[in-house]
Amino acid sequence: MLEPSGTGYHGPHDDGDLTLTNRVAVLRAALGDRVRTEPEVLAAHRRDSWVLSELDDLEGRSGPLPLAVVEARSTVEVSRALSVCRAERIPVVPFGGGSGVCGGVAVPEGAVVISTARMSGLIELDSSDLTASFRAGTWGMEAERVVQGHGLTIGHWPQSIDLSTVGGWVATRASGQYSTAYGSVEDVLLDLEAVLPDGSVVRTRRTPRASAGPDLRQFFLGSEGVFGVITEVTFSLRPLPEASRGQAFHFGGFREGVEAMRRFMRVGWRPPVVRLYDARESERHFAETCPEGRAMLILLHEGPAALVEVQRAAVAETCHAAGGVEADVAAVDKWLLERNQVPGFRPFLEKGIILDTIEVACTWSRVVELYERATRSLAEVPGILLASAHSSHSYRSGTNLYITFAARPADRDQMAATYRECWRRTLDAAVAVGGGIAHHHGIGRVRRDRLVDEIGDAGIALLRSLKRGLDPEGLCNPGVLLPGDDRSRRDR
Amino acid sequence: MLEPSGTGYHGPHDDGDLTLTNRVAVLRAALGDRVRTEPEVLAAHRRDSWVLSELDDLEGRSGPLPLAVVEARSTVEVSRALSVCRAERIPVVPFGGGSGVCGGVAVPEGAVVISTARMSGLIELDSSDLTASFRAGTWGMEAERVVQGHGLTIGHWPQSIDLSTVGGWVATRASGQYSTAYGSVEDVLLDLEAVLPDGSVVRTRRTPRASAGPDLRQFFLGSEGVFGVITEVTFSLRPLPEASRGQAFHFGGFREGVEAMRRFMRVGWRPPVVRLYDARESERHFAETCPEGRAMLILLHEGPAALVEVQRAAVAETCHAAGGVEADVAAVDKWLLERNQVPGFRPFLEKGIILDTIEVACTWSRVVELYERATRSLAEVPGILLASAHSSHSYRSGTNLYITFAARPADRDQMAATYRECWRRTLDAAVAVGGGIAHHHGIGRVRRDRLVDEIGDAGIALLRSLKRGLDPEGLCNPGVLLPGDDRSRRDR
Repeated sequence: MLEPSGTGYHGPHDDGDLTLTNRVAVLRAALGDRVRTEPEVLAAHRRDSWVLSELDDLEGRSGPLPLAVVEARSTVEVSRALSVCRAERIPVVPFGGGSGVCGGVAVPEGAVVISTARMSGLIELDSSDLTASFRAGTWGMEAERVVQGHGLTIGHWPQSIDLSTVGGWVATRASGQYSTAYGSVEDVLLDLEAVLPDGSVVRTRRTPRASAGPDLRQFFLGSEGVFGVITEVTFSLRPLPEASRGQAFHFGGFREGVEAMRRFMRVGWRPPVVRLYDARESERHFAETCPEGRAMLILLHEGPAALVEVQRAAVAETCHAAGGVEADVAAVDKWLLERNQVPGFRPFLEKGIILDTIEVACTWSRVVELYERATRSLAEVPGILLASAHSSHSYRSGTNLYITFAARPADRDQMAATYRECWRRTLDAAVAVGGGIAHHHGIGRVRRDRLVDEIGDAGIALLRSLKRGLDPEGLCNPGVLLPGDDRSRRDR
Repeated sequence: MLEPSGTGYHGPHDDGDLTLTNRVAVLRAALGDRVRTEPEVLAAHRRDSWVLSELDDLEGRSGPLPLAVVEARSTVEVSRALSVCRAERIPVVPFGGGSGVCGGVAVPEGAVVISTARMSGLIELDSSDLTASFRAGTWGMEAERVVQGHGLTIGHWPQSIDLSTVGGWVATRASGQYSTAYGSVEDVLLDLEAVLPDGSVVRTRRTPRASAGPDLRQFFLGSEGVFGVITEVTFSLRPLPEASRGQAFHFGGFREGVEAMRRFMRVGWRPPVVRLYDARESERHFAETCPEGRAMLILLHEGPAALVEVQRAAVAETCHAAGGVEADVAAVDKWLLERNQVPGFRPFLEKGIILDTIEVACTWSRVVELYERATRSLAEVPGILLASAHSSHSYRSGTNLYITFAARPADRDQMAATYRECWRRTLDAAVAVGGGIAHHHGIGRVRRDRLVDEIGDAGIALLRSLKRGLDPEGLCNPGVLLPGDDRSRRDR
């Protein structure tokens, strides 16, 4: 059950509030058949793809079902749903694809889900301006297919592209596999529309750049549903590239590979795909193309053919100078084939294995230290089976590390505790080197109590201040992003 | 005099507040000799470089002097100053270089200025990570010189680089002349420190990218002093380029030049400098290299030599296909020499000529329409002498227009009214084509009552909500950015 806390939503009220059944009736009066209460619909909107929620399900500790799922078909209907929920003090959880892996959706008692699933499809596309606007519930791959039909690309390739929505990309501040050249979602987003907790509609201007006060898109990028519901997004597109060529090298160690990446990134070369795997992951993924014990770097170059050629040559020169050995480009083809296969957690959990990926980031000079600290610390966790990492998103001043762990604790009851311990150790390592605790999966519930390590007490206070102003009762996605907003059993 | 309004600071209080003299004494008790009250110091911090403030000065209508100028030497002192001002309900105006041109500084009655002038210089530089941290009051050119001493560049070249501070760049969301490749200040900013209105200190994390809730840097980028004072900034640098080469073309008209830019931008070529001048400005600036009546496009390519070569060739091919004729590269050299000569308004004002530049932006398909609407509409203003434009910052989906106007109304008393009419017509044109009202100078006072055209009522409400949370009494730079925050005589 929910318990009172310092701020925000405190769970269903004992008196003065509508009964749960009446809440649904009030929603129905406002939104008619958009309000779904069939058991299978409720069950499908209870949570995202966070492994701890999956473990809870497996162990019979599933969280509550939503009271109802509002399948809004328009911005007006989202606005109406939020207005009703505010008036009736009903907590609201926005739901896109449900592919989040941080517990950004774990419906609290008595809450209503607003699904964007029926707000889908292209609104307008201008191939001269390179713009395409979509309703927020459009599946990522569907949006990409639509623009590819015009010879264009969004250039945003999260591994979840088949499972996530374009609105979800914005709400979680997603990155894609091609981000090293094309940027993350904030770099491809041109404008958006969102409904605030009070039902009012914000639309940002369709302009390539503005100096008109703080950039309002940024209030919603990474907002994880706590500031309302994103209803439309417009991307600034690219033409499909004239040329596309893979390239691969292996290095004596992770350190040498990092140094090669740093060197070609600093002078301005930008292959869309730059991925360096430690020896463990190189063996796992590239046994046929990477000698044992070496660290594999795979690259994909895209753009005008002339650019691709000079970039490939420059990257090769840098990699050779850093001790890299050219590898079979079949490694890139293999990655391209397998890149969007999102593994299911369930078969592992059933075997008593708890596992996850944790993405962190830091400046170049601290990458190897972060890698070593995190993997060494994870290696000390009882039952650990695996601790490995790769870098998949690089920048002028640093890169990310995508750390994978798996553990089988002796006692099955310790799976959740082991999980938390692995997360704690990895984020401790990121904090110790001065890095960032979250590169692209977001905060959700899994990192919520560590957000203070990223932005400090004053940063938390700043976000809280905005939250109180927009959502004084803390009804929008309570328990997510901001620490201490509820104390439900779902909190870790 | 100040009059009450709906929200925010309403001017000095009649009773219950400290007298103005006592306010200075309280500040002195907290900050000692950091508190300056010499008349020449007060006079130098009264306003920024907005032409209407300059006109007021010329005509003997200067605004009030600040009560005092706090020359803080540290973040702690900025924090102390803000805490005292909040406790004593003293309005506060942050002051960087004073080079703003939108009325972002026009001190209201009874206010204190916090100057960052004594918070200057490099804090740390890491040439491997390409990072450099500066105190906020560091002059732009000083910061650039420091990093150039290490073979690096910030790559941010506002025309005001000799007159503006690195903190001011962030507070105003500045763009530089090399933005087409290197981005605007939000793209070179890695992290920052700022003091909130309550004196608490926010520091963002030194990480190349994060998905950890909304990006807190964005609350300060474009905040124009209304959310506190920026105290430190860290840039993600670049090495000085291996090669740098100019290129120039002239076109039959502005339309043909715009089309050429759109075509090479869309496939991904990124010369740092891409500037297209209409025939009027081409004649004014490039009489020796551009035939009369033609539109001049100048470019500067930078980067690895191999990249510069293929990019120059591709841009040339695109420009020729769009009807461009190669021009003498001396045009680029001339621009490089003269680019930071910021013209003074005073000699014009003394002759009864009112003038300004207005930067707006839109998507490619509307650029020519915006250009024609704005220049035609300006041509109808009584006394107009000049209405011309160039594009100086391009993007995948659009570009900016930098519109220059000058007018000599028959009646000298009509200078301010003529000014407002020219602004109104230009922003009306930007709004009519669906574009943005402010590309890189900010809102200040000159655009304040048009911010609603950019972000709508709900956007204004969102910013107001944040403002109320952080600065409930509206003490931080009242009258700027948010409409209706004061009704002082300085408001236009």
